[in-house]
Amino acid sequence: MAQRNPDQKDPVAGEVLARYLREQATEFLRALRQHRESGSDEAAGPALALRAAARRISGSLHTFRPLLDAEWSDTLRAELAWLSGTLAREHGYAARLDRLIGALHRLSPAAAPHGRGGSVPAQSGGLTVGAAKAGALIERQLTLARTRAHSTALQALGSSRFHAVADGVAVLASEVPLRKEAGGNRLEPFAADVEARLNEAVTALPLVRAGHPYNAEALLHGLAADAAPESQDAPWHQVRLLLRLHRYALEVIGTEAVDVRLLGAGRALDRHRDAAEAASAAASAARTPRIAPATAYALGVLHADQRHEVEAARFAFQAVWQRSGSGTGSGRPVGAS
Amino acid sequence: MAQRNPDQKDPVAGEVLARYLREQATEFLRALRQHRESGSDEAAGPALALRAAARRISGSLHTFRPLLDAEWSDTLRAELAWLSGTLAREHGYAARLDRLIGALHRLSPAAAPHGRGGSVPAQSGGLTVGAAKAGALIERQLTLARTRAHSTALQALGSSRFHAVADGVAVLASEVPLRKEAGGNRLEPFAADVEARLNEAVTALPLVRAGHPYNAEALLHGLAADAAPESQDAPWHQVRLLLRLHRYALEVIGTEAVDVRLLGAGRALDRHRDAAEAASAAASAARTPRIAPATAYALGVLHADQRHEVEAARFAFQAVWQRSGSGTGSGRPVGAS
Repeated sequence: MAQRNPDQKDPVAGEVLARYLREQATEFLRALRQHRESGSDEAAGPALALRAAARRISGSLHTFRPLLDAEWSDTLRAELAWLSGTLAREHGYAARLDRLIGALHRLSPAAAPHGRGGSVPAQSGGLTVGAAKAGALIERQLTLARTRAHSTALQALGSSRFHAVADGVAVLASEVPLRKEAGGNRLEPFAADVEARLNEAVTALPLVRAGHPYNAEALLHGLAADAAPESQDAPWHQVRLLLRLHRYALEVIGTEAVDVRLLGAGRALDRHRDAAEAASAAASAARTPRIAPATAYALGVLHADQRHEVEAARFAFQAVWQRSGSGTGSGRPVGAS
Repeated sequence: MAQRNPDQKDPVAGEVLARYLREQATEFLRALRQHRESGSDEAAGPALALRAAARRISGSLHTFRPLLDAEWSDTLRAELAWLSGTLAREHGYAARLDRLIGALHRLSPAAAPHGRGGSVPAQSGGLTVGAAKAGALIERQLTLARTRAHSTALQALGSSRFHAVADGVAVLASEVPLRKEAGGNRLEPFAADVEARLNEAVTALPLVRAGHPYNAEALLHGLAADAAPESQDAPWHQVRLLLRLHRYALEVIGTEAVDVRLLGAGRALDRHRDAAEAASAAASAARTPRIAPATAYALGVLHADQRHEVEAARFAFQAVWQRSGSGTGSGRPVGAS
């Protein structure tokens, strides 16, 4: 992992970073143009590309911060985070709805809504009715939330705040504001720093426990008042972000090989995040006033089901992570060889 | 496994069986006397011993049926099954209550009732209130069911039907009604027959799926109207009974070594049964009219939690079972060497 092409002479660090940022900025602007041309309702592909480029720019500005004009890059990073967050919300609600309807279909094939306005079968018992009502409630709530997120995203893309972000990215595409002494530095130590933070964060995870199947950790305090599940999820979400930062840093320093282990670990933590958010959405739907007990019961089953998906994702993460020793490289600086 | 003491000469099969049945009958009568002397409310120990002896007698009458007076032993077996079932119910409700309150304590430490009349903390949110109400509801329902089962058991023990069972067992304790030709038969083929049925039943289980942690099988169709979870549990319950029958048959033919694998497999399937029944009890409590949505939600989480325990027990069973090859002896007749 993290071995550079040996034929390649060490290019000046600042140039390598600048080239990467220019590429990503160009990709950002291209996706933005596509998004505008394709009409706002069919722009899922360009929106994903826009967010992917924004994340890479933002991550690189963070990892290689000492090589860049600090004030300028901190500002752009904050604004890119706002933009990514705003654009991600719509997609997030849609994905959550898909996941929950899929789970309901597994729990009660007759009850899960297919498309809009799925009707409850007339001859079914209380369980199926509860599941069907839970599905309808979740669909209504998440569809409404998605519609609102869509409007917010459209507003954001038309705002002067967004135009300032696009201008900032356009500057990157033409001339990256490197600090004068950046050329003398090597990029690897900064990437190694991210990797060290990642390894440290993974070490702090309860991996031994996660490696015991059916440890029931994800539902621990699942009915407690202080929303304990969310607090136990936080370190895993943090590792997910560091894993992504690490992957982008490897892209910048030009690692050729795709590390399937990093990809597998990332997928497990994406699933962890998705399941955790779906479980929250089920719990939140259950707080709707005046719902029937059968609906609430189905939402409780659905919540627990998704919390078990959270546990399953942790199990999958530790299995991928332990597969080839612990850590991404036993603390060895990335690309230092 | 199933090796007999090599120093021992082959005793006549009927004698060996008769000796075992006499021992168990004596144990049954001893436990019955203790149960009467200890006062009916403190008789959990003797009641367990009574049921254990009844199960062993009943199992042996079944396995070695061709060696015994068929009509007589079929009648006694049916009556012992009635008795075991009646006595088991009280203990079953108590165990289910313990299991569910334990699970609630894990889900919501502040809410689970401790002893009778546990009050809901005043400052807690909807989740804790729901969990506390669910706990109180389950405690009320299962305590009532247990009290009724206790009365039924007492009535049964005072009935003429019971006295007829005790008389039948007393006959066993003095003279086992063997068929005349029983002496010429060997016991091992009958035990091997049970083992073969056990192996066949295990082979029919979805062990490959059970060996994949977090396969979500136990909640499949968990919100469907046709009570699918119960139907998927049945083959596992069947293996649990055959495993016990196999263990008793090994006792009869005098296998010295305790097979830890059989014990482990049996424990996993006991847990499977307990969790399945606890999940049912939670679902059944959720059908109580006019409960609050928060209570129903907590019961849904609790139900799913116990269904995952069901899945965990299946995982544990297959792990124990696969540990030393498949099957109890690859179809080799027990003790045939």
